[in-house]
Amino acid sequence: MKLIDIEYLITLREQEQVDQKIEDICIEQSIEMPLRVVSEQIKNKVVGRFKEKKQVGERAYHVIISWPYGNVGDEISHFLNILYGNISLQKGIRITGTDWQLLGKELFGGPAYGIETLRKQFGVSDRPLTATSIKPLGLTPGELGDLCYRFACGGIDLIKDDSGLANQDSAPFEERVEACVSALQRAADETGRKTHYFPHVTALAEVSVKRYRRAYELGADGALICPHIAGMETMHQLARMDVPLPIMAHPSFSGPLVTSDTEGLEPGFLYGELWRALGADLVVYTNAGGRFDLDEEACNSISRKARDPSLPFRRSFPMPGGGMALDTIGEWARRYGDDTVFLIGSALYDYPDGIETASALFRKKVESI
Amino acid sequence: MKLIDIEYLITLREQEQVDQKIEDICIEQSIEMPLRVVSEQIKNKVVGRFKEKKQVGERAYHVIISWPYGNVGDEISHFLNILYGNISLQKGIRITGTDWQLLGKELFGGPAYGIETLRKQFGVSDRPLTATSIKPLGLTPGELGDLCYRFACGGIDLIKDDSGLANQDSAPFEERVEACVSALQRAADETGRKTHYFPHVTALAEVSVKRYRRAYELGADGALICPHIAGMETMHQLARMDVPLPIMAHPSFSGPLVTSDTEGLEPGFLYGELWRALGADLVVYTNAGGRFDLDEEACNSISRKARDPSLPFRRSFPMPGGGMALDTIGEWARRYGDDTVFLIGSALYDYPDGIETASALFRKKVESI
Repeated sequence: MKLIDIEYLITLREQEQVDQKIEDICIEQSIEMPLRVVSEQIKNKVVGRFKEKKQVGERAYHVIISWPYGNVGDEISHFLNILYGNISLQKGIRITGTDWQLLGKELFGGPAYGIETLRKQFGVSDRPLTATSIKPLGLTPGELGDLCYRFACGGIDLIKDDSGLANQDSAPFEERVEACVSALQRAADETGRKTHYFPHVTALAEVSVKRYRRAYELGADGALICPHIAGMETMHQLARMDVPLPIMAHPSFSGPLVTSDTEGLEPGFLYGELWRALGADLVVYTNAGGRFDLDEEACNSISRKARDPSLPFRRSFPMPGGGMALDTIGEWARRYGDDTVFLIGSALYDYPDGIETASALFRKKVESI
Repeated sequence: MKLIDIEYLITLREQEQVDQKIEDICIEQSIEMPLRVVSEQIKNKVVGRFKEKKQVGERAYHVIISWPYGNVGDEISHFLNILYGNISLQKGIRITGTDWQLLGKELFGGPAYGIETLRKQFGVSDRPLTATSIKPLGLTPGELGDLCYRFACGGIDLIKDDSGLANQDSAPFEERVEACVSALQRAADETGRKTHYFPHVTALAEVSVKRYRRAYELGADGALICPHIAGMETMHQLARMDVPLPIMAHPSFSGPLVTSDTEGLEPGFLYGELWRALGADLVVYTNAGGRFDLDEEACNSISRKARDPSLPFRRSFPMPGGGMALDTIGEWARRYGDDTVFLIGSALYDYPDGIETASALFRKKVESI
């Protein structure tokens, strides 16, 4: 029988015993009823199986449970349910890993492009990439296009919509994409260097699908989506469509899944592995030292796992952002290395000598590591 | 200008100041850049506005921020982004309420049926309702149908699929629905009393939509969906479709959003208000004292808010479950009152005198409050 391993960090409360907690998970995420009332056949075919435990702290254990693959029923949605369904309501259980070799073959396709193909598309072979966001909400398509033009002239590689831009009256989706694509074409004609644009497509799932297709038709180079709003499997659907646009994933609404040390999903597992499995070519995460609450260990884990060559998927670009500054970007670039897309937004807008100069400086700093 | 209020519980860390944290939220969830680099017009039209703060603990504040309604752009997905997008990655911010009067008029429709209509459909006017789950995963459609028949003969009002049942080979969706619908028809013919069946439709969003429609065509009485897997707005889409099936929402994968006291969404807000706004006629939650980690305060809040007549939506049935027992069900029934659907699964299967007797006892206990 094919089995999938899932790895857990289990943190016990005072009255809890590790073996009981493991058995409870084996049942909760499969049959949801006492073992004594199910048949031997179901017990053998359906219930999770304890595989391994290792004490890693006073009350903490690293645990592996193996799950019959048949339980998944060939649906990502139901894999997510087995991964972290009912047990998400129980404290002291954190998901840290799974068996991507089997899942990748059967269920998940991973990024349609990945680092190597994107580097060819972007024409950048040997350095980190620079990215920024166009904002704020409230600007017109023409004003957002002008920003694209100025960032492009400064040498930024990728431009994404701010996740605050959806389909508001100030800059409706189609008009915004048209204006930005045409501004970036104008910049490319002048500089001979193409800057790539990722509009934000998050909406009701079927509208996200339509916007993703429409973004391609209008000449965009990729699409930004918030999987924890549009639906995690919706991102996978985009990645498998016949639309050749790379996908950039954004962590909106996902925070509590990753900001606890004892519950949720280990940040590298969620953003670096699960999102990658779901098809994210670029993985936006909030970098340590900025405005957000992921620490350096979490960020290193995301960055490492997104690019881990041992997973059976194309490698994703980690894309740290959220309060990165020009004076520390060189240090981060040295730490994370070449296969990284650095996202600086506000600090470029706020630079005294203007956006073009700030963008050129940003580019120079990541080129010189 | 139309404004929507959002309410927050803010918990400060040592170095933090409440006014700064409020200003940071006003910016983070709108323009995402320093105020000094945006125009007066954008500042006035887009940025969140501090409305109210009240100290509620040593380092805790109840805060209201008003948001320009235009920011939402008439999309639930983007409302969710404004509600808890980037700030989900910042500690010390918990969402506790919003202005449903405006949102209900403009954006959310709430339950298509609600308590009053469901009572008529179910033919139960004046007592709590009883519900159970058919399980475990691994049974055939025929075996699941037999369980339906026995529960129905015992007098259970509602039967839902266990959330572990998706479209696995052991009981594919269509065959399962057909078998259960037909078994319940047989029971109704014999007893003169109809038990209502809610199959589980969670899948990729567009597949959820298809299964919801198919469930209706096959004679089901409602549908069970996990909004945090299929997508929150997907649930709203089902509720607005031309398919007359009530919706039961399940909390799979939502745990970390509600199990922290300082981050995420207050449980009554998520399950009792947001899910209700999104169209859940019945709101499944894990009851205190069972296998899960919501406490009594959280459960009371869910139960109260799902039925709060001041919201501009039909009222939802709260549906506590997850380890409820026959010997305490009477006490819970007295506490939560008539407008509740009590969900007991395992304890009915595990009853020494069999499922029919256990179901009849369950029914008797909630009838006699």
